[in-house]
Amino acid sequence: MRIAIDAMGGDYAPRAVVLGTELASKTSSSELILVGPQDVLESELAALAQRPSNVTIKNASGIPPAHESPVLALRKRKDASILVATRLIKEGTADAVVSAGSTGIGMVAARTILRLLPGVARPAIAALLPNPTGMCLVIDVGANVDCRPQHLYEFAVMGNIFARQVLNIPSPRVGLVNIGEEEGKGNQFSRAAFEVLAETNKAAFDFVGNIEGRDIYEGTVDVVVCDGFVGNVILKTSEALATAVFALLRRELTADPVSKLGAALSKKAFKRVLKRVDYEEYGGVPILGVDGVFIVCHGSSGPKAIANAVFEAERCVSHEVNRRIVAALADRGTASVLAPVAADA
Amino acid sequence: MRIAIDAMGGDYAPRAVVLGTELASKTSSSELILVGPQDVLESELAALAQRPSNVTIKNASGIPPAHESPVLALRKRKDASILVATRLIKEGTADAVVSAGSTGIGMVAARTILRLLPGVARPAIAALLPNPTGMCLVIDVGANVDCRPQHLYEFAVMGNIFARQVLNIPSPRVGLVNIGEEEGKGNQFSRAAFEVLAETNKAAFDFVGNIEGRDIYEGTVDVVVCDGFVGNVILKTSEALATAVFALLRRELTADPVSKLGAALSKKAFKRVLKRVDYEEYGGVPILGVDGVFIVCHGSSGPKAIANAVFEAERCVSHEVNRRIVAALADRGTASVLAPVAADA
Repeated sequence: MRIAIDAMGGDYAPRAVVLGTELASKTSSSELILVGPQDVLESELAALAQRPSNVTIKNASGIPPAHESPVLALRKRKDASILVATRLIKEGTADAVVSAGSTGIGMVAARTILRLLPGVARPAIAALLPNPTGMCLVIDVGANVDCRPQHLYEFAVMGNIFARQVLNIPSPRVGLVNIGEEEGKGNQFSRAAFEVLAETNKAAFDFVGNIEGRDIYEGTVDVVVCDGFVGNVILKTSEALATAVFALLRRELTADPVSKLGAALSKKAFKRVLKRVDYEEYGGVPILGVDGVFIVCHGSSGPKAIANAVFEAERCVSHEVNRRIVAALADRGTASVLAPVAADA
Repeated sequence: MRIAIDAMGGDYAPRAVVLGTELASKTSSSELILVGPQDVLESELAALAQRPSNVTIKNASGIPPAHESPVLALRKRKDASILVATRLIKEGTADAVVSAGSTGIGMVAARTILRLLPGVARPAIAALLPNPTGMCLVIDVGANVDCRPQHLYEFAVMGNIFARQVLNIPSPRVGLVNIGEEEGKGNQFSRAAFEVLAETNKAAFDFVGNIEGRDIYEGTVDVVVCDGFVGNVILKTSEALATAVFALLRRELTADPVSKLGAALSKKAFKRVLKRVDYEEYGGVPILGVDGVFIVCHGSSGPKAIANAVFEAERCVSHEVNRRIVAALADRGTASVLAPVAADA
């Protein structure tokens, strides 16, 4: 397998990306292709204790300047690392792309170069939120801010397959974000989406009905679908609140000497908590619905997140997530369940 | 002033409501009218160490059974405590209502009995979320799941006045919930709402533009407006995530003896954190836009929350929140800022 890694994407690029690639190279049997300026990457690799044998370089320019429209930015910089990396899939030189660059730019690259999978009207970005036993996949979190109910059916099909094949959840429970659990709750859009999802053959995915915030965080649902506006609000509110709570804890736990001592003693417990909510543990989030595997990492990804994203991309490829999505959409989803979950590569 | 208190609303009614009323009676100079079954409330009051002189009883039946449509429930039980309490405002026998019953039932009671304030097309429910320096008011959080952009203008006017008069924020910064800060971001609805809010005279309220989740929790905005679907998702996701984080902390901090000891030493710090995120500290949330002061408390409110809701209701009345809303809407908001903030009663 060959994984193209956008070496210039992310707040700590290229260093963190190169270190993450080195980390992944230790257990991965794939060819890992770092995409970025040859000279920069050569010197980054030369600085490693040992240059990994399964890491190669593909020359490209750096990322387009931020704070611009992604479309305009990419039009100006045709040899940007993210574009070159994505073209490797199109050309058949790579099986997947990993990037910690902006999601917007990733989306534009994926849509314009890879195009959509047959049967997909809207590609979507899925995010992973932690719950007590694992992860809840929220789809879409920003690619589609104005949706039709039918699009949520696609999100459910794609999310269900990703959850089964990549997150190893045998029978994902799929829920619709709403403001009450009873049927008939919600706004015009969510009521119409409920109808579409409830009509679906149970073999396509297990639709458990309307869900609310607590279902996401209590682990009573595995995949939640919503339009990209609502999903983005859920994601950003959650990130912001978690950050605020931990900041508040840090402030109060260092405010008096006794609490400070207590916090020092509880250090291991806090580490376990942070590990549970740490996005670096799962790597990145997929752009689903495009004809190629595309994993977007958090902008502030460190080496561990990059390495985990590489493994995630490998699972997407080996478990044929995209072939399954096409098959499932072709027969309104039944194939996704009839086909067995792929054994881990 | 006379505050009607729905003695039968909430998970711990009537006990918690009666104790909260007793607590409020110690510092309040209002007449506090407990509304519920006379015999039940007489025996609750008799059980107190001393029966407060400023607490009276208004006979009514208990709350309608839950898990029903609020409209149907209230139609069946015309002498339900929440209806009787709300009618006291209509009759001029009370200046405000406090209830820990369901928000849905409160909304139906408020709309059908009190009717709307002149100039208000949609009443709204505002929630308060904690930030590092105080509170952020989110409006609407569920009364209006399908909005027109113009409704968000009303929410901004009402939220601005409540924040100034009741939360004591001299110049509230009003933001629009969106999925990016730049103008032009968002879905069709949020872009149209941005236009309406941005056109508003700066004297009506200080519109600071689009905001995201982090603005709510970092304290860079005081009032955020959104449709009730999005607001409800923000509120429920936040509650669920906060609960999940504290549950995770509790689990990990008791998982090994050293952490447990550390947690015991840090007890004071945790108490300060919990106090900061405790809804009991601020009491309740207002239903704004109806012709009467109506404060809804959390269903699991204890005595402290009930007492704080009584004080909140008193501030709404003494600071003439409703008169200011009518005036502000009549001249598209300019009156709300020209009129001075009321001195505390």
